Amino acid sequence: MEKRGIGKIALLLSLGDGDIESLQKYYENKNYIIYRGQAGSMDSKKIIAAIETAASREDIIRENYHEEHALYHAIIEALSGYCRGQVLLGEVLRSAGLTFTIVRGTLVEDEPSSGNWIAVVLYGQIGSPRRGFEHEAIGMGIQPI
Amino acid sequence: MEKRGIGKIALLLSLGDGDIESLQKYYENKNYIIYRGQAGSMDSKKIIAAIETAASREDIIRENYHEEHALYHAIIEALSGYCRGQVLLGEVLRSAGLTFTIVRGTLVEDEPSSGNWIAVVLYGQIGSPRRGFEHEAIGMGIQPI
Amino acid sequence: MEKRGIGKIALLLSLGDGDIESLQKYYENKNYIIYRGQAGSMDSKKIIAAIETAASREDIIRENYHEEHALYHAIIEALSGYCRGQVLLGEVLRSAGLTFTIVRGTLVEDEPSSGNWIAVVLYGQIGSPRRGFEHEAIGMGIQPI
Amino acid sequence: MEKRGIGKIALLLSLGDGDIESLQKYYENKNYIIYRGQAGSMDSKKIIAAIETAASREDIIRENYHEEHALYHAIIEALSGYCRGQVLLGEVLRSAGLTFTIVRGTLVEDEPSSGNWIAVVLYGQIGSPRRGFEHEAIGMGIQPI
Amino acid sequence: MEKRGIGKIALLLSLGDGDIESLQKYYENKNYIIYRGQAGSMDSKKIIAAIETAASREDIIRENYHEEHALYHAIIEALSGYCRGQVLLGEVLRSAGLTFTIVRGTLVEDEPSSGNWIAVVLYGQIGSPRRGFEHEAIGMGIQPI
Amino acid sequence: MEKRGIGKIALLLSLGDGDIESLQKYYENKNYIIYRGQAGSMDSKKIIAAIETAASREDIIRENYHEEHALYHAIIEALSGYCRGQVLLGEVLRSAGLTFTIVRGTLVEDEPSSGNWIAVVLYGQIGSPRRGFEHEAIGMGIQPI
Ligand SMILES: [Mg+2]
Ligand SMILES: [Mg+2]
Ligand SMILES: [Mg+2]
Ligand SMILES: [Mg+2]
Ligand SMILES: [Mg+2]
Ligand SMILES: [Mg+2]
Repeated sequence: MEKRGIGKIALLLSLGDGDIESLQKYYENKNYIIYRGQAGSMDSKKIIAAIETAASREDIIRENYHEEHALYHAIIEALSGYCRGQVLLGEVLRSAGLTFTIVRGTLVEDEPSSGNWIAVVLYGQIGSPRRGFEHEAIGMGIQPI
Repeated sequence: MEKRGIGKIALLLSLGDGDIESLQKYYENKNYIIYRGQAGSMDSKKIIAAIETAASREDIIRENYHEEHALYHAIIEALSGYCRGQVLLGEVLRSAGLTFTIVRGTLVEDEPSSGNWIAVVLYGQIGSPRRGFEHEAIGMGIQPI
Repeated sequence: MEKRGIGKIALLLSLGDGDIESLQKYYENKNYIIYRGQAGSMDSKKIIAAIETAASREDIIRENYHEEHALYHAIIEALSGYCRGQVLLGEVLRSAGLTFTIVRGTLVEDEPSSGNWIAVVLYGQIGSPRRGFEHEAIGMGIQPI
Repeated sequence: MEKRGIGKIALLLSLGDGDIESLQKYYENKNYIIYRGQAGSMDSKKIIAAIETAASREDIIRENYHEEHALYHAIIEALSGYCRGQVLLGEVLRSAGLTFTIVRGTLVEDEPSSGNWIAVVLYGQIGSPRRGFEHEAIGMGIQPI
Repeated sequence: MEKRGIGKIALLLSLGDGDIESLQKYYENKNYIIYRGQAGSMDSKKIIAAIETAASREDIIRENYHEEHALYHAIIEALSGYCRGQVLLGEVLRSAGLTFTIVRGTLVEDEPSSGNWIAVVLYGQIGSPRRGFEHEAIGMGIQPI
Repeated sequence: MEKRGIGKIALLLSLGDGDIESLQKYYENKNYIIYRGQAGSMDSKKIIAAIETAASREDIIRENYHEEHALYHAIIEALSGYCRGQVLLGEVLRSAGLTFTIVRGTLVEDEPSSGNWIAVVLYGQIGSPRRGFEHEAIGMGIQPI
């Protein structure tokens, strides 16, 4: 099997399809730090805050600006992909309900020389704040840490 | 099992992980039209052209502007997510090598009332035009058709 | 006389110059569905909501996501043109007072084969929230429906 | 009749609908300087150059940077509205064929105190470089001069 | 010594390094109008309002739309540079604390023929709303006035 | 004297005003790595390449993707600030002639705990490709390394 990149690991976990728990354990045993959570809001800063809070609480990043900066930029890139351009939700009358996945570890599995990176994936629904009037969206940001 | 959305179907196929052929057949039997191809360039218009050409050749879209417009906007949204903001590759000295997946069918599987949509997913590498100096990226666009 | 496109029809109605009522009737007799309304706010989501509400109430779009999605994207494109880039009003201390025009019908008049489309035009003033310190702006979005 | 703004004057002339020549003369007699031309390209800089060249040749702007800067920013705002976001044509495999209209004069007709401004309107078609696979677009930029 | 541009004058004053007061006086004697103030917020419109208020109160711009428009666009360009792309602060959970500098005068010192321009420079910190988790940022906008 | 941030160090060196050589030596003695170069083009990728090449040749970054990625994102942020929004030069018929400054060292001078960062500052002229029809611009990107 081809070696997976940190992005693919985060994407597979995000999609939550198949035996996710085994997959998560498999990569935790390879020293990846992994967290999956949920966030939903018309307010983009609440989604960002939910991810940052989870990353701190779960010790995915250490309490220094260097690492917080890497996480923040990964989140913003993921959100930019999710929004497909302008990072706006409620301001343009739309809402997001999503699963976020944070993965920290080597850029490529079993390649320590690829260095330590952090990947953030957002996968869920985006649309009008009215049930059924929404479609799926995805975004991913990857930063060295 | 939860019903999958057209986006998740396209994403799982894009990641090319596990038994993709069975998955593709499974959804083709449910009347989804599916195509996976490869494109790599510093020139974003070549990537767009490769996807448009494949969609026409494989009869995923009919030869009318209505459908071509839906496909085009899905591609641009996917590319915007892949680039995380500005749809620029060579202009900012970066290159993309990716798998594109086009899926046409109902927004949610087994829900004919959800209508016909087209999803385009781009998954691959983005980075400097120098092997190993790149990381993964993903983008998805979904449009009614 | 050259056949007009749906965009020109919406633009002429937006400018509200000359005998608008005759023009509107002329195109309603050709099966175009037309609505003109007013909106003014520093809050972009209020402008979007005003247009969406009018479109539903006036039965310009049917109650399904397919059509709501087409309308939404047409509105966002129009707003993006009106704002000339970032879809921000109050966030950058500016306000908009505008007429919105929604037109649904064939892409080109008297050409049924051009398919059904929806055009949204915003025309009005944009500027500082202080009378006289504003200039005109326009934006148009067109989507298949 | 309500006094028209410089934007509306430029828009009416752009749409080229009705007795444009009389309208142009009417406003030239009110000291507006007006020019209408055509440009078509997948290359945005060619469209910008066509407008700048026409403005210089027709003496709409004087040969100084102050005025050239006002014109340039008006063009870019118009192009940004026309493209609805990113100012990209060929880079995203699309082409524009348009009429550009440049109007210089007071911000509001018969109101000398409103000062001198320049308006640029682009109106035409945007789409794939294939006849019939395109829809209308509009953009307007207004700057003090 | 090379003649300085209005941008460099504003930048040197912004950095607040060395004998700023002498520098300010030196350029005020050359008929530049200069103001330096502070603003800090997660709300971009408050920063814009602080600069506009200061410019009016200090008589850097006259009470007409022509000049207010030039100032506004210079501020937005400066803010866009400061934010490096999307003009968003609190919406993406970040805060700015900055010195703003407004300079009005000729584009190049001692060159009256270069015309009158206004430069706005923002220099300060941007980051998470938590002390020490921020880095420096700069932005400058220049407009004819 | 207040401790300077890495951004201010890079900015002061960029402005090239006063005794730059002493300033550069002063910070080199504090273990900052500094390089100043020139680039001019209508082609943004040439400017990026000039900076990347200089950074490699001068050993400001090590030959690994971790560091190259930090540099690249710092450059893009600087260019985005310089362009005030869309990272486009020739595509929108404008040209840049600038000094670039790369500084690597602690985020704040004499504060080793602030970690290692890289700052890129671009300062110069932007405008039409015609001498004298240009104004100053600045942009800065800062990334952990
Ligand atoms: Mg940052
Ligand atoms: Mg379109
Ligand atoms: Mg959508
Ligand atoms: Mg300018
Ligand atoms: Mg304006
Ligand atoms: Mg990257």
